[in-house]
Parts: sequence; C-alpha cells; structure tokens
Amino acid sequence: MAKRIRREADFQPELRKNLVTREWVIIAKGRGTRPSDFVGEAESERLPEHDDNCPFCVGNEAMTPPEVFAVRDGGPPNSAGWSVRVIPNKFAALHRTGSERVRHTGVHSARDGFGAHEVIIESPVHNKDLWEMDVGQIESVIEAYRQRYLAFESGEPLRHVLIFRNHGPKAGTSLAHPHSQLIASPVLPHQLQVELQGAAAYWEYLGKCAFCALVENEKEAGERTVLDTDHFLVVTAYAGRYPFETWILPKRHAIQFAAMSEAEAEDLARVLRELLGKLAGCLNRPSYNFAIHTVPSAEHNVRAYHWHMEIFPRITTLGGFELGSDIYINVVAPEDAARYLREARVPPTS
Amino acid sequence: MAKRIRREADFQPELRKNLVTREWVIIAKGRGTRPSDFVGEAESERLPEHDDNCPFCVGNEAMTPPEVFAVRDGGPPNSAGWSVRVIPNKFAALHRTGSERVRHTGVHSARDGFGAHEVIIESPVHNKDLWEMDVGQIESVIEAYRQRYLAFESGEPLRHVLIFRNHGPKAGTSLAHPHSQLIASPVLPHQLQVELQGAAAYWEYLGKCAFCALVENEKEAGERTVLDTDHFLVVTAYAGRYPFETWILPKRHAIQFAAMSEAEAEDLARVLRELLGKLAGCLNRPSYNFAIHTVPSAEHNVRAYHWHMEIFPRITTLGGFELGSDIYINVVAPEDAARYLREARVPPTS
Repeated sequence: MAKRIRREADFQPELRKNLVTREWVIIAKGRGTRPSDFVGEAESERLPEHDDNCPFCVGNEAMTPPEVFAVRDGGPPNSAGWSVRVIPNKFAALHRTGSERVRHTGVHSARDGFGAHEVIIESPVHNKDLWEMDVGQIESVIEAYRQRYLAFESGEPLRHVLIFRNHGPKAGTSLAHPHSQLIASPVLPHQLQVELQGAAAYWEYLGKCAFCALVENEKEAGERTVLDTDHFLVVTAYAGRYPFETWILPKRHAIQFAAMSEAEAEDLARVLRELLGKLAGCLNRPSYNFAIHTVPSAEHNVRAYHWHMEIFPRITTLGGFELGSDIYINVVAPEDAARYLREARVPPTS
Repeated sequence: MAKRIRREADFQPELRKNLVTREWVIIAKGRGTRPSDFVGEAESERLPEHDDNCPFCVGNEAMTPPEVFAVRDGGPPNSAGWSVRVIPNKFAALHRTGSERVRHTGVHSARDGFGAHEVIIESPVHNKDLWEMDVGQIESVIEAYRQRYLAFESGEPLRHVLIFRNHGPKAGTSLAHPHSQLIASPVLPHQLQVELQGAAAYWEYLGKCAFCALVENEKEAGERTVLDTDHFLVVTAYAGRYPFETWILPKRHAIQFAAMSEAEAEDLARVLRELLGKLAGCLNRPSYNFAIHTVPSAEHNVRAYHWHMEIFPRITTLGGFELGSDIYINVVAPEDAARYLREARVPPTS
C-alpha cells in the first residue's frame, strides 16, 4: 500500500475549478511529496509471454465469443494471425438484446440493461503494457477504437459509447492480458452531460471552444505541459481530481475521436507510448485508467465539444469525502506532477 | 483482494434510476454471487486497546491541536475524561484562514482553500469500530456530529459541511483509531447540487418530498428493507452504485440532521450499531464509508430536502468505466443484499 501522504500544514490549500464542468477540486499538496511517496506497491512478478489458460492469448480464439473486428495479416476470423482483436465481453455488463421501454414500479424506474460491452484485445502477447508495444501496434489499437466508434454510430439506439482501459489491480483489472473495453449504453452518462453543458455554455458566453482555449492557455503557461507534439498537447489537469491526472488534448478542434486523421493517429500512438511510459517510470508501473471523452453518436448537432483523453494513475484511495461530495482532494500539485513527468524516463522495453 | 465476480451471462442486466438524482446505474448481478465472494481480504490483526503513539488515544491529548468540542465527564479541555473529542485536523485539506476572493489566471479560476477540516474522535479506546461500542457511546458521537453542524451554521461564510467516516484500508483510512471527519467548504458540492435540484423538481412535479415517497414505497415493497424501527427505515438503495449500498432514512420529514430529536438520536445510535454490525458479520468486517447528506447552512430556504445517511462497503474496485462516465456497475442486486443483511448476525463484541 502507498505510504500515507501527510498534507503540508503550512501550504495554503487551493480550490480550483474545472473550466468545462465548473466542478471544484481541492489541491492540498503533501509536505515535500515526491513520486517515491506513492511507490510503495510491490511490483507484480513478470508474467509469461503466453498463457495457455488466457482467453485473450493468441491460439485461444475459441475460448472467446466470435470476434466483431480484428486487425489481422491473414487467416480467417477467430484464428491466429491478428494483431488486435475485438470481441463481445463474455460477462457483459449490458446485453445486446432487451426492451427499450422504461418500467415504473412504485416510485422507481428501470429498463433492460440493453447495450454492448466489448473487449479490445490489444496484442497477441500476454505480458506487455500498452507503452511496451511498438508504435505500429499501438496504431492498430487506435484503429480498432476508431472502427468500433464508427460501427456504433450507424444507427443503433445507443446514446453513448465509452472506450476505457483498466490497468493493474488498483484500477479494476481482473485479467492481465493487455486489453481495453468498450461499453455502449442507451443513456447519456451524467458526467458527459455536465461536460457537454459546460462546453456549450463556454461557447455561448465566450464565443469559442473551452478546450481550444485550454490548449492555447496551457501552451503559453507551460508549467503543466508534459508533451507538446505536432498534433497533441499533453498536460496535467489544472483542476485534476487525481494526483498525476493527465489530459491528452488534440490541438485541432474536433468533436469526435473517430474523425482523427492518419497523421494524428500516428502521433497519438507515439504520445500514448511516451506518456504511459513516463508514468511507469515515474511511479513504478502504477495501476491506472484512461477514458476517451468523445461525443456520442446521437448528439451530432453538438459543436462545442472537443474530444480528448483523460489518464489517471490509481495511487491514492478515494474516501468518504470524495464519494460523499464529489469534491476531490488532490495531494500533488499538477505543476509538480508535470515537472516530475517531464523529467521521468521511459523504462527500457526490450 | 476480493475474488473476481463473474457476471451471470444469462441474467438480463438492468438499468435503474436514482429517483432523486435521476442518475442511472447498471445492476449486473454476478453468477450466484454470495457475500462470501467478497470476503477475500485477510482480516487485520486485533489492535491493542491503547497505543502510546496514537494521537487520538486517551492521555495523548497534547499530541493534537486543542479540542473544539468534547463530550466529557469532567476535567479541563485537552485532558483525559472525555468520551468523544473533536479537534482540528493537523493535516487539514482546508485551512481556517484565507481570502474568499476568486482569482483568475488565464482561463483558470482558483480561490484559497478556506474552510475547516476536523476529526471527531469517537472513543478514548483505540481498537473498536463504531458498532462495537455501546449505544450510549454512539449517542455521544451523534451528539458531537449535531453540535458541530450547529456550530458551523451560525454565520460562517461556508456553504457546505460534510461529516463522513472512512473505515479500513480500502476506504481511505490512514489512522486506525475510531474517528469520523468533518469538512466544511466554501463551495457547494456538485453532488449535493444535483440532489437538491432533483428533490426540488420531484416536489414541484409530484407535490411531495421524494424521500418521504421513497420511505413509503420501500416500506410497502419490503424487499430492500434491512431494518425498520420507530424512527428510521434502513434499505439497500434501489439504484445503489456500490454492492450493499445502504441508506438510513428518517421517517419524519426533516431537512437537517441537526434537527433530530433526542428519541431519534437514541434510535439512530441503535440503528448504526445494528447495521454496521450486520455489515461486519455479513462481509467479514469490510472497509466502508458513510456520509451524512444534509442541507448546508446557507441554504435554509430549501424545503424539499430530507436528510439521510448513505453507507457503502468498499468491496469492489472502481474502474475506468465508473470514473470515466459516472455510471456505476453494481454486481449485487440490492434485493439480494438486503436479504443477506436481514439474515446476517452482528458478531459478538465482548
């Protein structure tokens, strides 16, 4: 378990506002907190390259439901020869069948858990995290994300598609083999509603996209910048809820992830490799999540949104204050986290 | 770590709506999930009754900042003789001093982390969880909560006071000695805003309090009832975000926790003892949080709200879907959880 971070008594904590959602967070940085304060976890032993019992390993295609998409060099579906493979989740949180009707029982409302839950198997190899793969492999993963977004856009009665990744035991992973997940749901998540409303209000009052304004501001400020490439600005979030929370912001105003150009996709693969590698180097291979924030298929008339990715290492434990109020206490100043990440080295991957 | 819960492939998952916040959750119950599926944690060794190095133990009063409130039989402040003691948190997330001015830097807004962060030490004894104390002791804890709410209501420029409890390593506790915390902040938490708006809308459309309607509905339905006493109905939440999420609902419409009568306070002490004891018996002393939901001092003109408590064991790990969308996947049907809790025994406490 991570060591206890004692907050610095003589550092005045700060409340910071997320410019899009307008939610406040408390930045209460620890007394001389360094990345090593969070590196208490025992590193898990090195896994084998192949596990005969892993349903996601190459050769075990018959252990999963039939694939819905794959990047493959050859061979028929559901055989070896793939580099990325997308399958329905065998233990899905939402099912492909069910009624769309809302049922009312007394004061309560419910509906069938209709939707989709897929697994994006990111590699035939069992034991590599995303940043340990080569750039071409990560590009294939991004292509799979893009294709699945496009597939769900064509007329399904689903309002939202979230692609996310859980890595490590503290981030909710149950299978080690590198994978991301997709959940498509018939309801618009509250968090995205708040983001959409916030972005629309910003545009209305200030005449521009909040995320474009953020890119411009952060580029000039510089103190939260982790990476600055042709197509992306990577910054620690000014009002980050989690220590080392980092956003990947496309420089080009684009509403949807799936609208990415080839050059952007290639750049994103490099950015992901570098950023996740730096997090691994800085925090000793922490558990982490990432989620792609993009506009749902049913909301095409939105213009104020700007897709992006949010990455957060899971190095602290949320308590009753966070879960009871939705105000987060972040014990690492985002400016410090950015400095640590700029200085961090990607561990060797060979 | 808890075992992996495999969701039941042939159980149709359900989306359920929280009647107040109108947020959806996914109930995707596990295949034959039983409480024992969550009981994988090694139980921590029994702590001593007194720890010389613990700042919260009796006799160590000089190790903490001066108390701001105590329930005591005698003796001057900051000496032994107390049964409950409230102190400022030495490593406070918010400080008692600071400006109220909002500062703007480029696109960003911030303000001093002005507010209060207190610790309610619930017992002079080091090693008892709340449910292991006698009812009189728990009543003293409730009295301390009440007094602190009243203290913050008298004219401070703070908009919200949250009292919450973190118990166990997976719930964000760093000190074992039984304690709760209070954080008073100058901003209204987003989650409470949503609750207040939801309760107001319910009243507007249906002419009554949503929580009163919930009490009536749940009493009649019965299947989610855990305890039913003179003054409280304890139910698992219909749209619970967490497995075994349980709400303590006062039967009398009352906006604020601090308005509780003596008879209600005594009943609440019994209810907390019984409920937390049942959770300990059912889930092998899990980590858990609770939070008191009550109206902030600055919002006196609210009439639609109804104070209550929300308790959630921390037996699963939130992943990228929950944190990236705010839609929660709950793998235990609330009706099953209620049945397990009704049947559960409180472990012996002597």
